[in-house]
Amino acid sequence: MTELPNILASRYASSQMAAIWSPKEKIVRERRFWLAVLEAQKDLGLEVPQEAIDAYQSVIEQVDLDGIRGRERLLKHDVKARIEEFCALAGHEHIHKGMTSRDLTENIEQSQIRDALQLTRLKSIAALSALSRRAEQWRDVPLAARTHNVIAQLTTIGRRMAMFGQDLLLGLERLDHLAENYPARGLKGAVGTQADQLAFFDGDSAQVEALEARVLKHLGFEKALSAPGQVYPRSMDFDVVSALFQLASGPGSFATTLRLMAGQGLASEGFAKGQVGSSAMPHKVNCRSSERIHGFCSLIEGYLAMVAKLSGSQWNEGDVSCSVVRRVALPDAFFAIDGLLETFLSVLDNMEIYPQAIERENRRHLPFLGSTAILTEAVLHGAGRETAHEAIREHALAAAEEARAGNAVDDFLLARLANDPRLGLDREKLESLVKQEEKLIGNAGSQVDAFVAQVAAWKKRFPDSSHCHSEEIL
Amino acid sequence: MTELPNILASRYASSQMAAIWSPKEKIVRERRFWLAVLEAQKDLGLEVPQEAIDAYQSVIEQVDLDGIRGRERLLKHDVKARIEEFCALAGHEHIHKGMTSRDLTENIEQSQIRDALQLTRLKSIAALSALSRRAEQWRDVPLAARTHNVIAQLTTIGRRMAMFGQDLLLGLERLDHLAENYPARGLKGAVGTQADQLAFFDGDSAQVEALEARVLKHLGFEKALSAPGQVYPRSMDFDVVSALFQLASGPGSFATTLRLMAGQGLASEGFAKGQVGSSAMPHKVNCRSSERIHGFCSLIEGYLAMVAKLSGSQWNEGDVSCSVVRRVALPDAFFAIDGLLETFLSVLDNMEIYPQAIERENRRHLPFLGSTAILTEAVLHGAGRETAHEAIREHALAAAEEARAGNAVDDFLLARLANDPRLGLDREKLESLVKQEEKLIGNAGSQVDAFVAQVAAWKKRFPDSSHCHSEEIL
Amino acid sequence: MTELPNILASRYASSQMAAIWSPKEKIVRERRFWLAVLEAQKDLGLEVPQEAIDAYQSVIEQVDLDGIRGRERLLKHDVKARIEEFCALAGHEHIHKGMTSRDLTENIEQSQIRDALQLTRLKSIAALSALSRRAEQWRDVPLAARTHNVIAQLTTIGRRMAMFGQDLLLGLERLDHLAENYPARGLKGAVGTQADQLAFFDGDSAQVEALEARVLKHLGFEKALSAPGQVYPRSMDFDVVSALFQLASGPGSFATTLRLMAGQGLASEGFAKGQVGSSAMPHKVNCRSSERIHGFCSLIEGYLAMVAKLSGSQWNEGDVSCSVVRRVALPDAFFAIDGLLETFLSVLDNMEIYPQAIERENRRHLPFLGSTAILTEAVLHGAGRETAHEAIREHALAAAEEARAGNAVDDFLLARLANDPRLGLDREKLESLVKQEEKLIGNAGSQVDAFVAQVAAWKKRFPDSSHCHSEEIL
Amino acid sequence: MTELPNILASRYASSQMAAIWSPKEKIVRERRFWLAVLEAQKDLGLEVPQEAIDAYQSVIEQVDLDGIRGRERLLKHDVKARIEEFCALAGHEHIHKGMTSRDLTENIEQSQIRDALQLTRLKSIAALSALSRRAEQWRDVPLAARTHNVIAQLTTIGRRMAMFGQDLLLGLERLDHLAENYPARGLKGAVGTQADQLAFFDGDSAQVEALEARVLKHLGFEKALSAPGQVYPRSMDFDVVSALFQLASGPGSFATTLRLMAGQGLASEGFAKGQVGSSAMPHKVNCRSSERIHGFCSLIEGYLAMVAKLSGSQWNEGDVSCSVVRRVALPDAFFAIDGLLETFLSVLDNMEIYPQAIERENRRHLPFLGSTAILTEAVLHGAGRETAHEAIREHALAAAEEARAGNAVDDFLLARLANDPRLGLDREKLESLVKQEEKLIGNAGSQVDAFVAQVAAWKKRFPDSSHCHSEEIL
Repeated sequence: MTELPNILASRYASSQMAAIWSPKEKIVRERRFWLAVLEAQKDLGLEVPQEAIDAYQSVIEQVDLDGIRGRERLLKHDVKARIEEFCALAGHEHIHKGMTSRDLTENIEQSQIRDALQLTRLKSIAALSALSRRAEQWRDVPLAARTHNVIAQLTTIGRRMAMFGQDLLLGLERLDHLAENYPARGLKGAVGTQADQLAFFDGDSAQVEALEARVLKHLGFEKALSAPGQVYPRSMDFDVVSALFQLASGPGSFATTLRLMAGQGLASEGFAKGQVGSSAMPHKVNCRSSERIHGFCSLIEGYLAMVAKLSGSQWNEGDVSCSVVRRVALPDAFFAIDGLLETFLSVLDNMEIYPQAIERENRRHLPFLGSTAILTEAVLHGAGRETAHEAIREHALAAAEEARAGNAVDDFLLARLANDPRLGLDREKLESLVKQEEKLIGNAGSQVDAFVAQVAAWKKRFPDSSHCHSEEIL
Repeated sequence: MTELPNILASRYASSQMAAIWSPKEKIVRERRFWLAVLEAQKDLGLEVPQEAIDAYQSVIEQVDLDGIRGRERLLKHDVKARIEEFCALAGHEHIHKGMTSRDLTENIEQSQIRDALQLTRLKSIAALSALSRRAEQWRDVPLAARTHNVIAQLTTIGRRMAMFGQDLLLGLERLDHLAENYPARGLKGAVGTQADQLAFFDGDSAQVEALEARVLKHLGFEKALSAPGQVYPRSMDFDVVSALFQLASGPGSFATTLRLMAGQGLASEGFAKGQVGSSAMPHKVNCRSSERIHGFCSLIEGYLAMVAKLSGSQWNEGDVSCSVVRRVALPDAFFAIDGLLETFLSVLDNMEIYPQAIERENRRHLPFLGSTAILTEAVLHGAGRETAHEAIREHALAAAEEARAGNAVDDFLLARLANDPRLGLDREKLESLVKQEEKLIGNAGSQVDAFVAQVAAWKKRFPDSSHCHSEEIL
Repeated sequence: MTELPNILASRYASSQMAAIWSPKEKIVRERRFWLAVLEAQKDLGLEVPQEAIDAYQSVIEQVDLDGIRGRERLLKHDVKARIEEFCALAGHEHIHKGMTSRDLTENIEQSQIRDALQLTRLKSIAALSALSRRAEQWRDVPLAARTHNVIAQLTTIGRRMAMFGQDLLLGLERLDHLAENYPARGLKGAVGTQADQLAFFDGDSAQVEALEARVLKHLGFEKALSAPGQVYPRSMDFDVVSALFQLASGPGSFATTLRLMAGQGLASEGFAKGQVGSSAMPHKVNCRSSERIHGFCSLIEGYLAMVAKLSGSQWNEGDVSCSVVRRVALPDAFFAIDGLLETFLSVLDNMEIYPQAIERENRRHLPFLGSTAILTEAVLHGAGRETAHEAIREHALAAAEEARAGNAVDDFLLARLANDPRLGLDREKLESLVKQEEKLIGNAGSQVDAFVAQVAAWKKRFPDSSHCHSEEIL
Repeated sequence: MTELPNILASRYASSQMAAIWSPKEKIVRERRFWLAVLEAQKDLGLEVPQEAIDAYQSVIEQVDLDGIRGRERLLKHDVKARIEEFCALAGHEHIHKGMTSRDLTENIEQSQIRDALQLTRLKSIAALSALSRRAEQWRDVPLAARTHNVIAQLTTIGRRMAMFGQDLLLGLERLDHLAENYPARGLKGAVGTQADQLAFFDGDSAQVEALEARVLKHLGFEKALSAPGQVYPRSMDFDVVSALFQLASGPGSFATTLRLMAGQGLASEGFAKGQVGSSAMPHKVNCRSSERIHGFCSLIEGYLAMVAKLSGSQWNEGDVSCSVVRRVALPDAFFAIDGLLETFLSVLDNMEIYPQAIERENRRHLPFLGSTAILTEAVLHGAGRETAHEAIREHALAAAEEARAGNAVDDFLLARLANDPRLGLDREKLESLVKQEEKLIGNAGSQVDAFVAQVAAWKKRFPDSSHCHSEEIL
């Protein structure tokens, strides 16, 4: 049979993320875990021949996926197949004592999830750093901000970067809280009561507790659940994937907005030297990476829907309705967020803005961009707020009609406003209002500074994030 | 880099379904399509050297995925990479004339979807056949039907099979309607207007129409869309995946109910000779395949959420926000439904019922199972319906308390009912009412017959469905 | 307690749609149904006093929702509460004989669904008519089509309308197929076997069949399911809501694109005389109705997720896990699609295009818009397709840089192209290529005509659609 | 027009939760907020006549929803309608200075969300308390735990309660973290730059900061976002609803398992004195409230899908695509979780277990329930783990066949095990192994104690949770 590749892992995710979820790596992790349990059992008093431990140790890396699958075909049980394979390689039957399959798989998969969360955190901080650099770079470049996709007030490009950064920071905070507090299921036995380890240690709870502590340490977890069933609550998988989805929000909105800006000719995500935009239209320069970011968001939402079905649906002490779902949704969700962050990093590195086009756009819309400033001034001069609003609205609508006809509107609009007694503002005042860009952008600059400072704190806490660079993307 | 496999394709889906979506196969389909266009263009008057066609023809099967990926890395455009690879192999630049990338990819992907729909239809009919065999086999085996998971009225096991079959039939009808009416996008050019093919044929619409007809025939489509943009509406992908989800409903409810029956000791999904249920608890016989069916339903719902995000979100004439989503969600949704149907076929082949346990259960609950029959009889004898309902309710609740204490309730309940003047029924009448199983099951038998007949009609229409057998599942 | 309104029904949906789902109306429908069953039972031989029928008849419209709720509080059973209320009003106990609650509620709710589907179909046709009128009106107005949100090739505005119409037509076809083939559950009793009606008719299946036929006729259904359990398969609800979601795709993509066009200053959704765009910025003219259309799409996707959880999750012969879900998701999904269509109709009625702005945009981009035409011409003159593509790509990228600097590019680009020997085209040829707008738009016009003709056929089949007008929207 | 009620608010949610989202209440909250801004502006130096403030103050409670709607019909802008209504009532035009609509609505809606989160937290703690009481009550009642819905090992009922409690605790921790750290958008103006308040205060950032601090204090928030656009990132709404969904997991799994236990005759959710289970089958005692809990989970998943579409989809500085979605999904998600918790509290109060039935079940399955204990003992006596597993598996499968035939299996199974030399255990040892229930339940008791202690800490932190009692549910 042709083996089909996991398209997300092979085409979009980084090799680091792929390694965490590699089938072979997982077997090795499991075997190390079995040995850690076995050695701890020995240390705590169980009779275990050292040669058995040595024998297992020596075959850890001998992973024959086809052989294991052959066993599974007969046993119809994946973990039993892996136990028997490992035992056959070692020539002993000592692993998995007092354990149920889930003592193995839950903890190992949680260690994969934890590692993947940490990698994702690092990469998010790298993305924030890149965003922060752009925010600083364009801190004071005025830009016509848009709401409802039409001209609103003046902001700066750096401030727009900070806005998406704000969203990503919220996502990072949630991810970080999750990564820091994520508990392992622990060594709890077939229905969670630890009856089997207790039987091995003649009912001595303290020994069983010590065993679990050893095992958690091996895995790198700080705490275990206190009363799970056979499985940890699947709401924890939902928590993880929903945190990934939330993390995608900032990049998603950024990408959407970059696509809009590209459509208005104000920016692009960059275009490599030999890059082709369209096989039919040679002139095309497309925001295909930004579009891809949006695609990743959709994927993660789908993986979220998958794990959502597992949450709150446990029958009794658990079953494996979740098995195929988790085999797919957990790695693929991490591949998707990883592909998204790789793409996002690449876009942040390569994006360009077109200052001349941006300035033309600002100039064209300046009197409109100042409509609130005019309203404010009129109110400060004593006009009723709603009265002034209505006056400006009338004149602005008339001016917009002029603009659509291709006419310049500055003079048209300011003249009408100056003549309206409801406002009480003269032409000179009006002109000064719409010209003072530095006033129209308000606190944009200091808000950028605040964002940059927040990012700096994260970089300091996770200095390794500076080594995260986008692998070259397809 | 370690290549990770597509877990759904390699572990659960059939080799037939995997073949439809194989990356290599797709390249070959595309090349055949390019040649079909080129030959049609030649036949319709474009100058195309025959040797170019021959050269392309001779290299169709030379698929070097790594080479193509190397080109894509430079071009950042997957289709352009494949054009250049094919041209380099052939030593000509004649394919893709008048075409945009989507003229290629949309139509080819639609041909994959169509083939996958047809394979799914066949396999659904095979599943219905198996269900129909079981329905006939157990047509007259009485079973205590349950609503709210507690004893309701008597039915038969065959009738319960027909119930899930009813659901699957509805799903099949929708799938069939979709497969029969599924249109190709057609050869429409970069924004859908066919401007480029028109330019090649000097504005002759008839020629362009003839070209499209030729191409549709090559692909096996009966019709094309009349006014798409660069892409076909993504609502069509939603239509496809939602049809798959709907198809999963019957098997999903079947599997859930089989898990319930296994928990009550009435049935099992079968257990292979060497099969192991648990690595910790040697006695376990689990419904793991039925649980897996449920898992596939969750997966398909996730893929549906992914394509749902594409539907209604087209910007202008289209873009590739959908690209990564469709690369993942379309094949994986088909792998999931295919894995589901394979598993369902396997369960239907291997499931067992435990007649003695079922009969014990029926006997234990018979007086309750007849409560509506008693109500009916009382009403026929003149009792007010709600009055009789209240009387029976009182006695039944008292009897249920007895039953929970472990006491037999037949005599207890019938005595109380016989003594209640609100009902006007004597003991003899009551006993006959709860004993006549053939009356209590109502039309169960003839409803099974109707289901079997419906399935027979589908089998007749698609005789190939009889060759669909479950591949051995893990 | 403060009664909170259903915001979708009161703020967005039409009064017709609200009436279908009104709680009071539902009670009346149920009572009519009970009487239809009772009269049919009488006609088929059951003894039923005419005065009882008359008594029930006379109180049908006396609906006291609070009284019914009072009963439910004691009975913890909604249908039993409604039975007892109706019986108490009439002074008889004759309704609901041989029936289970679901015989009532399933069929009644299905009749509501069917009516709502038909209303939605009518309104969709009205929307198509409006879209078709716009397509005709702007059939030949050239427009720079966009892919990836940047300039692609020339199309017409009418053709863009037809593109969204194509999507809506696909949605309508599915909705229509569903509405035409939607079966009722029928009168099947507590677990689907019809045991209770059979008991009333002494086991005579023909009588029971006749009874069901009478009841279907009363409800206006053509067919019933043959083997449901207590409930009809919930995959049918999924089918309905997924059809609504699919229907929303065309309007969704239309609205997205109109928001984009508004951002580019090419069109607006219209702006009422006294309308205010922003409470802060008096100049704002926003696409708020188009944005709302997008919001409705999101809502329907949510309702779809709700009913998806019911599909494939039936336990045994059924239960009421679905109850609260269906109470919310079914009406609200119809309110959302109705609100969407109302809004869509309003936007179609009021939208404006700005021809001067559109023409300026076309003129600015003309040489780029013709890049494929130039490619085609070069190929027709013997250039290798990929060679020519590369040549044009180089010059177009250089020209784009000029354009961003604010310089005119016509001359710049055409001069470079004319000088490139790889293309073999002279300046005159090139100029003619990019000037012939009627060639550059390809088959746009005839594709519009085809769309208009398709819509005309639907209008003819459903002439009542012409009476559907948007109610004034908030 | 008939006003349709919000079914979730009127039928399922508590009056406290309904009050938070009441339309009238929201108007009052908004007006209080406007006045807080106005008073702060005055205190910080803006000229505002005290009589205007008094006039506004005096009409705060005069809420005429129809009048406001009439204004909105003309203005097509909800906030402007409410501004004009409030101004007209007061006879002044002083509110909303320097504000944009979102300065009002975002902050007010966030205050509603925050209040609703806090109420939900309190009710979750009340649910945990009830669960904890049940866990203590049934701490030591042995129960046959199930995995894959079939008999696994022994646990206790109290321990099963603690298992669902573990899940709910995780959900509560997340909800609590969110509630404690939830930031307001703050007073940021039309595109987030605070340009308008700055203009009012002549560019003095410190004044604007002081104003925002005043306003946050009025609302009861501790912090504001630093760089939002017109709107706060919609990922925050996703965070909220996903926390609600996660919170529903414990109750969802609890309810599913209670339905399973009811089906096995081991427990019920309680049954009120006059309660009716079925209008057709008088004997029925259904788990309808537990089923309803499952229904609420489905609803919340749907609302999550709605808000997920808003996350990562922001265009530029924001728009109102989210408006209709948030109007529906936010209150309805809270009504659903509130209805769920009310129902859960009611079930916890009224549920019953049937000790005799549970004991019969345990006794019937005891030798199977001890299969791991036998495996452990064999291993401790020197048997190879996998060898012993295979031996026990063989005998257990044979015994299961006996059991299905209705025969007692204790003797059959123990005899076979005692005779198998692979195990090396005599009959006496085996009998003692399967009889010592207190050993078979492992740490169940102490795990219950740990759970009870965790809940106690929450109750101590939120003593008000003890006043949360379920309102009587329908």
